[in-house]
Amino acid sequence: MQTLSKECLSIIQQRPQNSHKGTFGRTVLIGGNAQFGGAIIMSTEACVQAGSGLTTVITDSTNHPALHARMPEAMSVDWNDRQLCDSVIATADVILIGPGLGEDKKSQELLSYIFKSQTKDQYLIIDGSAISLFAKGNEALPYPEMTVFTPHQMEWQRLSGIKIADQTEEINQAVQQELQATIVLKSHQTEIYDDRNAFQNPLGNPGMATGGTGDTLAGMIAGFLAQFPHSVETINAAVYLHSYIADQLAQDNYVVLPTKISQALPYWMKKFEK
Amino acid sequence: MQTLSKECLSIIQQRPQNSHKGTFGRTVLIGGNAQFGGAIIMSTEACVQAGSGLTTVITDSTNHPALHARMPEAMSVDWNDRQLCDSVIATADVILIGPGLGEDKKSQELLSYIFKSQTKDQYLIIDGSAISLFAKGNEALPYPEMTVFTPHQMEWQRLSGIKIADQTEEINQAVQQELQATIVLKSHQTEIYDDRNAFQNPLGNPGMATGGTGDTLAGMIAGFLAQFPHSVETINAAVYLHSYIADQLAQDNYVVLPTKISQALPYWMKKFEK
Amino acid sequence: MQTLSKECLSIIQQRPQNSHKGTFGRTVLIGGNAQFGGAIIMSTEACVQAGSGLTTVITDSTNHPALHARMPEAMSVDWNDRQLCDSVIATADVILIGPGLGEDKKSQELLSYIFKSQTKDQYLIIDGSAISLFAKGNEALPYPEMTVFTPHQMEWQRLSGIKIADQTEEINQAVQQELQATIVLKSHQTEIYDDRNAFQNPLGNPGMATGGTGDTLAGMIAGFLAQFPHSVETINAAVYLHSYIADQLAQDNYVVLPTKISQALPYWMKKFEK
Amino acid sequence: MQTLSKECLSIIQQRPQNSHKGTFGRTVLIGGNAQFGGAIIMSTEACVQAGSGLTTVITDSTNHPALHARMPEAMSVDWNDRQLCDSVIATADVILIGPGLGEDKKSQELLSYIFKSQTKDQYLIIDGSAISLFAKGNEALPYPEMTVFTPHQMEWQRLSGIKIADQTEEINQAVQQELQATIVLKSHQTEIYDDRNAFQNPLGNPGMATGGTGDTLAGMIAGFLAQFPHSVETINAAVYLHSYIADQLAQDNYVVLPTKISQALPYWMKKFEK
Repeated sequence: MQTLSKECLSIIQQRPQNSHKGTFGRTVLIGGNAQFGGAIIMSTEACVQAGSGLTTVITDSTNHPALHARMPEAMSVDWNDRQLCDSVIATADVILIGPGLGEDKKSQELLSYIFKSQTKDQYLIIDGSAISLFAKGNEALPYPEMTVFTPHQMEWQRLSGIKIADQTEEINQAVQQELQATIVLKSHQTEIYDDRNAFQNPLGNPGMATGGTGDTLAGMIAGFLAQFPHSVETINAAVYLHSYIADQLAQDNYVVLPTKISQALPYWMKKFEK
Repeated sequence: MQTLSKECLSIIQQRPQNSHKGTFGRTVLIGGNAQFGGAIIMSTEACVQAGSGLTTVITDSTNHPALHARMPEAMSVDWNDRQLCDSVIATADVILIGPGLGEDKKSQELLSYIFKSQTKDQYLIIDGSAISLFAKGNEALPYPEMTVFTPHQMEWQRLSGIKIADQTEEINQAVQQELQATIVLKSHQTEIYDDRNAFQNPLGNPGMATGGTGDTLAGMIAGFLAQFPHSVETINAAVYLHSYIADQLAQDNYVVLPTKISQALPYWMKKFEK
Repeated sequence: MQTLSKECLSIIQQRPQNSHKGTFGRTVLIGGNAQFGGAIIMSTEACVQAGSGLTTVITDSTNHPALHARMPEAMSVDWNDRQLCDSVIATADVILIGPGLGEDKKSQELLSYIFKSQTKDQYLIIDGSAISLFAKGNEALPYPEMTVFTPHQMEWQRLSGIKIADQTEEINQAVQQELQATIVLKSHQTEIYDDRNAFQNPLGNPGMATGGTGDTLAGMIAGFLAQFPHSVETINAAVYLHSYIADQLAQDNYVVLPTKISQALPYWMKKFEK
Repeated sequence: MQTLSKECLSIIQQRPQNSHKGTFGRTVLIGGNAQFGGAIIMSTEACVQAGSGLTTVITDSTNHPALHARMPEAMSVDWNDRQLCDSVIATADVILIGPGLGEDKKSQELLSYIFKSQTKDQYLIIDGSAISLFAKGNEALPYPEMTVFTPHQMEWQRLSGIKIADQTEEINQAVQQELQATIVLKSHQTEIYDDRNAFQNPLGNPGMATGGTGDTLAGMIAGFLAQFPHSVETINAAVYLHSYIADQLAQDNYVVLPTKISQALPYWMKKFEK
């Protein structure tokens, strides 16, 4: 297993002068039912602050006021407006589904809808309750090599069938080979598996062990994939920077609120810009 | 009566490296009717910033937008969705009921519901209007030794029957012996009573005499009990630090807004970390 | 006409140690219809930051989410819940009516209701559209000497019948004698009239000429009257400090947003504390 | 084509002492349907922070909570309340229509309504989806010389019929001559065309290539026209300062969130004040 280092941030290149918001990708985030709107809001903050060119959130309409109050830079679409969802998804470069999605019938329908809608050039991130839904269901991934799962250890157990105690590199890698998707296995030392390699994130701290840290990472990965190459290196950079910023914040904070990580993104991305 | 000192903050230990959000506890906060949503929002901010691993708020659905706008890190459950409430409460380590709860039929039902739901390992904090409801009712505490009341002097009069002028250490302690629960008697010099001891907080300032200071303290106690031992020492630390931070803020502020105390929690907890 | 000076701030006394939120007054703010909620929110921010012990807002329920998102320290009551309004108003020390109230039938009813409810110890501030409503109506002030009007020049024209060009000290004072209420006549050099004196505020700057500056002043006056003596000196201090803070902000800001004035209140009140 | 320089900011004059909010103009912003409320919120923030005396937003009522939560300084009117819209528009100095307006029947009706309402002294800014609606329709501008379009390159293609690759100075100028309105053609080097001149903005950076940058510029132009002369020089200054501030922010930020530009406006306008 390779240990990530600061070099993995070299994908954060200086932006070309002649560019517009389309240059940096269109990201669609799907989640946030009527009860759990906070998760998708945190993903959105991470995605916008990470530099996604255009960010649209498909969510329950009860979440629109809070989303706009925190992040007017994102657009917000009612997930019952299928026609508008269709047009938004059709032009997406990256889709994230899962934060606060829930696991009811509506959530399952949305996941199936995304599987039907995804095209071969669209990257799909499956997070949170969408992982559990996928694990329970029997649908196949349309484009495994264009898919990343971001489970924590219990979600990985559901998805892979591997008990937490048995989640070794070798066994994880074997399941990755079956799934073909990239795996971001979140823990106090997050691991990333793709079809050739396994990576370990050496950074992170226990102040990050609070609700929303994973939603924020998922949004960052989406924002990075929107503007940087569709590769495991881009995912590695998001994982590494997420913990790097949290470690900076932890020097002065017993708890690291995930929204603070998002707010610090533009500053640290500039610092590491090549 | 023992006077609290900075030593009481020694429960704020360095977090273990190998941890996840479950390590730092699941807290459920119940309050905020359609009119008085601000109180439960302030408790939530204190609880999350104090480091509760996972914070869920059971409240009237009209409060969800403001709660998510201020604190997306917390989850929000409609208190009419009993099935969801059941599952959230079943996994709680600490329950706080009362801030902005009101005193109508619905509020009474919720308090009774919590008394029926509490298990022997769950710590229960009873604050604000829930204290008045309990005082008026005739229900018994399911687990007195796992319960803390956080009355101000008038609420203590209602609960204990002791008139404010008569609230001496000896008489307060006697009523505590009957109730068996821990008492945090809020005043300009807050006192804490458990079955063996009485403590007095020497800190605090008149800039804190503004709406929400008590809701914030209740949220802090919940967040501390979620991650630190279920003991009076943990409650003492929350009371002491709440006033300590307020005293720092009062050096430059005529009024100390309670939300400012919450925002300063991660910084000061880091400072006092052992 | 006396020119106000820094000495007028000497009413900002150090708070007594043995105090609680009731010590610093209960303020009720009434305004904000379904369209114009921003005005009452700005008054609320000023009132809370100025140090009112307990602040309750009676407003259209559509304004609750934004009010709680900005200022959870204030309580919020639906103005259609007459029973709750009754109990809130019964315990008020200071009542402010007008910011964003509108001038329709509902607004008129609320103003009449307040006139019926006011008791002889409650101070009443009439601002914004409530001034126009009063001018159009034929109701008498219940307690003129416990009432302050805060008109800008056009509202003063409506209230007094004096055209803007004719609003000289002598004529203004004459109308004040009829009304008996205190008048805060807002302009680029605000004047204050009570039954014995006229005062002029020498401070202020054109960066304050933006929507919400008056709503903020009205909220500050309410917050000051809640905790300091019910006298013209208290009103003078609010007027002077409002402009003093704005002048500090104007050194670095072409426009002075009124909410920035409110946010700076605790700091400057501490600076001037006797 | 003339290149803009810092001299164009000389229209930012010191404000006259004897002034009130009316002195600095009444601006009405129209946009934000039930889904895309963020755009009009960002325009509003720019307009208020730029110093418009009084700012009113006509929008879908679902956007009121988020608008008030972020910017209580602005008033908010439901666009279905035609009577209130009438009275607000009748007193406007500047009208902006388009951000997040959408392109459905309701949006088209609103645009037609504005064309019918505009008077010869009111400046009209047409942005975003209102440009596409105008391009599709067959209505004439009531006062072309009092109108500015703010298209990006694709919207300019729709409006002018000129393909992006063919949008040269000469051809753009020719279409401007037909339209007679001023054109702000947004790109990484924004161009401004009026009936006599063409200007190019030399500033700006690729960190601005994110959703909301255009909405913010439109709001700034509105705020500038409200208080400064109705001339192309005023529009030039808004375009130049928008990029100037973004360039300052880009020194420390990989992405420049548009709301950060708005928040920095009072500071930079003061710096450049003559």
